[in-house]
Amino acid sequence: MHYGYFNGTITPADQIGVGVTDLGLLRGYGLFDYFLTYNGRPFQWDWYWQRFQNSAMRMHLPLPLGKEETYAVVMELIDQSGLPDVAVRFVLTGGYAPDSISVVRPNLLIITEDIHPVTHRQYEEGIKVILDEYVREMAEVKSTNYKRVILMADAIKAAGAQDLLYQKGGEISELSRSNFFIIKGERLITPNRHILHGITRRTVMQLAQDDFQVQERPVLLSELYDADEAFTTSSTKKVLPIVQIGDLTIGEGKPGPKAKYLLERFDDLAKNW
Amino acid sequence: MHYGYFNGTITPADQIGVGVTDLGLLRGYGLFDYFLTYNGRPFQWDWYWQRFQNSAMRMHLPLPLGKEETYAVVMELIDQSGLPDVAVRFVLTGGYAPDSISVVRPNLLIITEDIHPVTHRQYEEGIKVILDEYVREMAEVKSTNYKRVILMADAIKAAGAQDLLYQKGGEISELSRSNFFIIKGERLITPNRHILHGITRRTVMQLAQDDFQVQERPVLLSELYDADEAFTTSSTKKVLPIVQIGDLTIGEGKPGPKAKYLLERFDDLAKNW
Repeated sequence: MHYGYFNGTITPADQIGVGVTDLGLLRGYGLFDYFLTYNGRPFQWDWYWQRFQNSAMRMHLPLPLGKEETYAVVMELIDQSGLPDVAVRFVLTGGYAPDSISVVRPNLLIITEDIHPVTHRQYEEGIKVILDEYVREMAEVKSTNYKRVILMADAIKAAGAQDLLYQKGGEISELSRSNFFIIKGERLITPNRHILHGITRRTVMQLAQDDFQVQERPVLLSELYDADEAFTTSSTKKVLPIVQIGDLTIGEGKPGPKAKYLLERFDDLAKNW
Repeated sequence: MHYGYFNGTITPADQIGVGVTDLGLLRGYGLFDYFLTYNGRPFQWDWYWQRFQNSAMRMHLPLPLGKEETYAVVMELIDQSGLPDVAVRFVLTGGYAPDSISVVRPNLLIITEDIHPVTHRQYEEGIKVILDEYVREMAEVKSTNYKRVILMADAIKAAGAQDLLYQKGGEISELSRSNFFIIKGERLITPNRHILHGITRRTVMQLAQDDFQVQERPVLLSELYDADEAFTTSSTKKVLPIVQIGDLTIGEGKPGPKAKYLLERFDDLAKNW
């Protein structure tokens, strides 16, 4: 059973009730973060905390807990779950607003969840994404604004695809909830702007340094035509090959060896975390 | 005391708890509407319902209740409040999502709230707004995305202003939570696009038809310089004069006679509702 921390109290997660004047609910004023544990320990905790703290600062919300206190809460929730590994979700909202618009004191929620791993088959076959002309507002802040992808859910399904790849004016940014990479020869290339700076993205770039020339820079749609491989990264997806983008087939239309190599490096790191 | 309806059950509003997998909370996937009662009756109910229904359709969320059932709930909540008049808020979210992203069944919340009327002084003196280069995504849908104005709260306060006036590329759209009008001679002019189609806006345009030449069209920043008057409309603000926009003083820098006339017409309509 999963437990949750909400404004100082730990209870079973399904018993937590957020009041109706919460600005996350009424005004979409919220941010979050999400990470997995490996061997019962939060993966890349320092980096996730840093990003959460930065999102909160950018949205002018003071954090109710410090890093060490939060870590202690996280460890207690992991322990209470009784599971070897879990996903951990932080949600910080503008809090309860008597006037429905002004921030008084943020609400902080921390819950554990089941991990929903990507299927073996998706790693073996790769996924399809469709292009969408869109750029997230304040993309570098992990805000709760995911209206676009939920609105597009039917279109994604109708195309037999798994996700959106956002582009604006021909420049690629990211998928709806994960980052984007292409491989050309020994070059590993990933967009540098209008993106959420993913922790898995950062981990993969670090792992790739010995074997690839890593380039963080604007990536154009036109560069997809001669890409050898493409993949997406997120805490859940790790390194997941993309084999089709709209009507365009990437490389041979099946996962390539370099994405596979990076996934193995990632799994090695996680296994020994 | 205010009561609320949440997915079929009516309880005191402060006892309602929204679960932590709600997509409004986790993903900002929600929409709402908000109206006042006059003489205990929902003002412009048909128009509000139509708009709420349209927002829900545009966000692909089926409405759990029909118009008549919803009206019955609203009347019961008004009755339970024990107040002569209240504000009524509808919130419709993507509902509980086991995977934190997919819509299964929307959550519908209906609550009554106290009315927070604009002060007499604000009507007498008019308000100041500051310009902000921004346009709301899907502005015509009353979604819960109000991140921008909450983020700008400090800047608004620092400028001694009450709100933002959004413009993009020199074209004015709306304030953060209300519509925008200018008056030039006998012309009443209001932006026609990138806006939420306000019910008070619509009411005021209708009330103005006999005495003004009403123009719904793109409005440029440059047109502010020779405007006689400016005002904003919303259910709470009714017809509220704007006397300063950034560094620009409108007309004489005090509320003008035509906005006052329209406010009186509005109050007459509401009084006899």
